[in-house]
Amino acid sequence: MSTVDHSLTIRTKLPSDVGTFGQVIAAIGNAGGEVGGVDLVRAGPSTVTRDITVQVVDEAAADAVQKAIGALRGVEVEHSHDRVFTCHVGGKVTMRNRVPVATRDDLAMAYTPGVARVCMAIHDDPEKVWDYTIRGNSVMVVSDGSSVVGQGDLGAEASLPAVEAKCVFLRELAGVDAFPLPIIERDPDKMADIIARCSSVFAGIHLTDIAAPRCFELATKLRERIDIPVLHDDQEGTAAALLAALTNGLRIAGKTLEESTIVVAGLGPGGMSIVRILIAAGVGKSLIACDRQGAVTSERSDLSDQLAWVAANTNPEGKSGGAAALIEDADAFIGLSSSGILTAADVRRMAENPVVLALAMPDPELPPSDALEVAGVYGTGRPDLPNQINSALAYPGIWRGALDCRARHLNQAMIMAAARAIADTCGSALSEGYVVPSVLNPDLVDDVAKAVRTTAEATGAARAWSM
Amino acid sequence: MSTVDHSLTIRTKLPSDVGTFGQVIAAIGNAGGEVGGVDLVRAGPSTVTRDITVQVVDEAAADAVQKAIGALRGVEVEHSHDRVFTCHVGGKVTMRNRVPVATRDDLAMAYTPGVARVCMAIHDDPEKVWDYTIRGNSVMVVSDGSSVVGQGDLGAEASLPAVEAKCVFLRELAGVDAFPLPIIERDPDKMADIIARCSSVFAGIHLTDIAAPRCFELATKLRERIDIPVLHDDQEGTAAALLAALTNGLRIAGKTLEESTIVVAGLGPGGMSIVRILIAAGVGKSLIACDRQGAVTSERSDLSDQLAWVAANTNPEGKSGGAAALIEDADAFIGLSSSGILTAADVRRMAENPVVLALAMPDPELPPSDALEVAGVYGTGRPDLPNQINSALAYPGIWRGALDCRARHLNQAMIMAAARAIADTCGSALSEGYVVPSVLNPDLVDDVAKAVRTTAEATGAARAWSM
Repeated sequence: MSTVDHSLTIRTKLPSDVGTFGQVIAAIGNAGGEVGGVDLVRAGPSTVTRDITVQVVDEAAADAVQKAIGALRGVEVEHSHDRVFTCHVGGKVTMRNRVPVATRDDLAMAYTPGVARVCMAIHDDPEKVWDYTIRGNSVMVVSDGSSVVGQGDLGAEASLPAVEAKCVFLRELAGVDAFPLPIIERDPDKMADIIARCSSVFAGIHLTDIAAPRCFELATKLRERIDIPVLHDDQEGTAAALLAALTNGLRIAGKTLEESTIVVAGLGPGGMSIVRILIAAGVGKSLIACDRQGAVTSERSDLSDQLAWVAANTNPEGKSGGAAALIEDADAFIGLSSSGILTAADVRRMAENPVVLALAMPDPELPPSDALEVAGVYGTGRPDLPNQINSALAYPGIWRGALDCRARHLNQAMIMAAARAIADTCGSALSEGYVVPSVLNPDLVDDVAKAVRTTAEATGAARAWSM
Repeated sequence: MSTVDHSLTIRTKLPSDVGTFGQVIAAIGNAGGEVGGVDLVRAGPSTVTRDITVQVVDEAAADAVQKAIGALRGVEVEHSHDRVFTCHVGGKVTMRNRVPVATRDDLAMAYTPGVARVCMAIHDDPEKVWDYTIRGNSVMVVSDGSSVVGQGDLGAEASLPAVEAKCVFLRELAGVDAFPLPIIERDPDKMADIIARCSSVFAGIHLTDIAAPRCFELATKLRERIDIPVLHDDQEGTAAALLAALTNGLRIAGKTLEESTIVVAGLGPGGMSIVRILIAAGVGKSLIACDRQGAVTSERSDLSDQLAWVAANTNPEGKSGGAAALIEDADAFIGLSSSGILTAADVRRMAENPVVLALAMPDPELPPSDALEVAGVYGTGRPDLPNQINSALAYPGIWRGALDCRARHLNQAMIMAAARAIADTCGSALSEGYVVPSVLNPDLVDDVAKAVRTTAEATGAARAWSM
């Protein structure tokens, strides 16, 4: 599989006869590359220079392609660049001004002496900070770099490209001013303290790429300290997207959430959050959660406070065993665990029209080839398969809605409303291969934002003086 | 004096005859307003609606003007808005994306899976953070809100409009991505800790609106902890601007810095910083510093460590007394103290062609009317007088230069180079009324940046692998 995330543009100088160009194209294919595009740079009397964009599977193939081109008689590789790295050069976000600074009058209004009256107005009435500063539309995107896009603990600095990407989404999809702020600290108490003390310019805190269990403790501590929403994309974002896919998957199977038996495998940020939301939705009785040690039951002696709470609220029959055993007769499987723990044979033991949402990355719990063999709905985290379930389906709209009503916090009702809105965006196009819309669906953010805002207002999470 | 920082736009509906419009204009003038502009909103068969922009001296005058208009027969004030507050609505800065997010390929390059390789590359070689993230062009503008644009301690939230204004300048004048980050903390140790732990996305820390002596301690502690420049506009920014004005003022008087006697009054952030820079420049022997208790001499028993250092390096003759006494025969006076402490008579006792830089705000140490009576160069912090000396002359160019060479820190040589560049920008236009250029001078930032960068490279402050 060649994907755009490994592609390079190779500037090649070659004799201008058609034959040599054909040899170059053939050499690229033989070396394992796939030509994505060819651009003319300049043409001389006997030579021509072209930028050839090539997709490859990995960096070894990238080297092999360049060597193969360079080995052709009369052909020269001038230089090449990796398109992904080029996309990140200089960072992916920037600041811009919303006011002119061209004259002395502009200065007098935007800065002294004019600004003094604006500062004093906020001092006299702190609520005015929402009107006369960027606070109302501004979100901190924060990571400690402990769990960076599936690569593990890379540290705060190395998380920055991923954190910036979240800011890019929030701006592009939801018009939010999001600033990337990795912090060099690992103690949840101290992290919460730093974030809270930096929070006066933000209307919300977006946690990302933070390992469990620190992410749970941090979110809880932050929510105790500050009166703006705290969202962890891997928790609430993933849970809302999963709940949407689950709702639509069961809808296709002709079942309801309330009457379905659901197995959740993996109790990291996403797993814990979907379990919490399903319990809040009243489906704890027909829910079984498991981690690497098997089903969570009160029999187990290794339970954290969190897992003890899960044991008390799920799996009333005390079923034990691993995911493959637990899914017997289940209507839905939700995986946020490890690649390949299920086979087609396992899924055949599930109830009719099973829903399998297998989010392990890069390879799902149930391999795509096995999924083809069994009926039902199959969703993964992968962009190259139908039904990609990603937190980015949820968090841009959640933030837009929360900011629009100046929410004080984010509650379960708001997350569930977001999930319903995501599910409903599929509309009449709903099918086995389309249980969630594309992240780029133009209606998605508006629909989710409206649902979140309305629910915030109904549940008292919106500030009284919201617009 | 009517200034734009108190101006309002009044939407007025009036009969469409010329006579009534004349009455409205007259009423505004009689009530103390000055009409700055008139715009047509809509015209009906018998009435016309106009937006009338009016400058006033204060809010009482604003009310009086509106009442006077409303009292005219057939005239109605529909609504009015304060132009300064309107300029700040929604904040003065915003985030924008530098990469497209329109297709799945865009997502795969800007985010997963592509971004994982970029994060890993930074993990493997931390210096790459400068290439593949916004860090290289990004500055944190931070305040604790303890000394906000001359209004005193307003708190972190209320500092935000002023902190945003610094970001606006940095973007507009120097192309820097500056983000406003007030912090809710007052202990210098804890402030330094928070800032350092948030520093991984920034190439520099810009301190602003922080009261003395906390600002000194914070800057010192920060410089010990992080290897990016720390600049306090009220210290290094003001000192560079003052040194430029002083250099040019003495040049006009036909004197050199080395042979001049200089009195500095006021030892807050700006005063301490100009004393430090003058000592570094070797002019300590002909320098006398004073605060509210009079000249700083080793005789005094109330000296902080900082003032003891000043005493040891200045005023070798041990002169005592206040500013008015100390300036006898001095070539230059630099004031960052209190309004009106000098008179024309005091200045007449200075050496020939005295340079008086009186930065107390809102009213200078030597009143403008007294300055007219004495020869020499007169500069203040005020925008409505010639020779406005403001840190904004210096810090945009200093940051541009520091970022362009990825400076590790800011040294005195870089500040002095900035001062020389500011002074030289006046070129052949140099005169008593033009010892510093306008903040909006289009050459200023480039000239200062080049000087700072070259000096950083020469003094080892630039990273070895700078561009």
